[in-house]
Amino acid sequence: MDEIDPAALLAVALDEARRGAAEGGVPVGAALFGRDGELLGRGRNRRVQDGDPSTHAETSAFRAAGRRPHYRDTIMVTTLSPCWYCSGLVRQFGIPHVVIGEARTFSGGHDWLAGHGVRITLLDDPTCAELMAGFVRRRPDLWFEDIGEDPPARG
Amino acid sequence: MDEIDPAALLAVALDEARRGAAEGGVPVGAALFGRDGELLGRGRNRRVQDGDPSTHAETSAFRAAGRRPHYRDTIMVTTLSPCWYCSGLVRQFGIPHVVIGEARTFSGGHDWLAGHGVRITLLDDPTCAELMAGFVRRRPDLWFEDIGEDPPARG
Repeated sequence: MDEIDPAALLAVALDEARRGAAEGGVPVGAALFGRDGELLGRGRNRRVQDGDPSTHAETSAFRAAGRRPHYRDTIMVTTLSPCWYCSGLVRQFGIPHVVIGEARTFSGGHDWLAGHGVRITLLDDPTCAELMAGFVRRRPDLWFEDIGEDPPARG
Repeated sequence: MDEIDPAALLAVALDEARRGAAEGGVPVGAALFGRDGELLGRGRNRRVQDGDPSTHAETSAFRAAGRRPHYRDTIMVTTLSPCWYCSGLVRQFGIPHVVIGEARTFSGGHDWLAGHGVRITLLDDPTCAELMAGFVRRRPDLWFEDIGEDPPARG
């Protein structure tokens, strides 16, 4: 794994996020890779596209990878810090490494995962952060629906 | 909510679990209800049926309920203690109450949820426990795949 460039893996997740943005969806993308860098599955948040609140980017990539006997040799890559739902997925299935584009616009459960032995690579990528911040500004309704929170009161 | 019988809600989840068993799937069922007991969505684990590792019973019921602005007035009912993935779903979306059929065969994140203010009703229902224990005995391969763990070594 040491020789794999996390930024190259993130590019696949970012491409998914951009596709989501072009579809009018929540622009979060993810991909599941093997430890040698082979792509196992990729996906994006599909709340808007499919009317499906259960399909966050990480669950979408996980689903696309199909059934596997275990995940000990995988890497989850996501453009945004994983929410509790997606962090729970990582913990339950024993995914040992999560590469995160950014955690500025939203910080989910990645510190909790680190405390449970998951390797976290936080890239603080400005392109991911700008894509997300722009979406939150334009569509706070969708964003807060997607994380199950109330939008902040307007000042 | 006080007047709603949790066992009546569990019956819907148990019906889903039995359908899953009849299909050869992992026999865990769930349902999402409104606080007044109206059914919002129901579903079952679909790993085997759909080849989809992302569809646990709780995520299936959550998906079936469709998009909602929030979940503060909902109750998640599941035949089995929710794994970390499904516990993360409950926490992220602010589902305030989880009714659990049993936690004998598997105990996931329900204590963690209780520590974060989620009301937990653990029914310790023998029918749920027998359905699950029988499945774990017959198909340990499927069961341990479903929770991302290695089967115990045979003694």
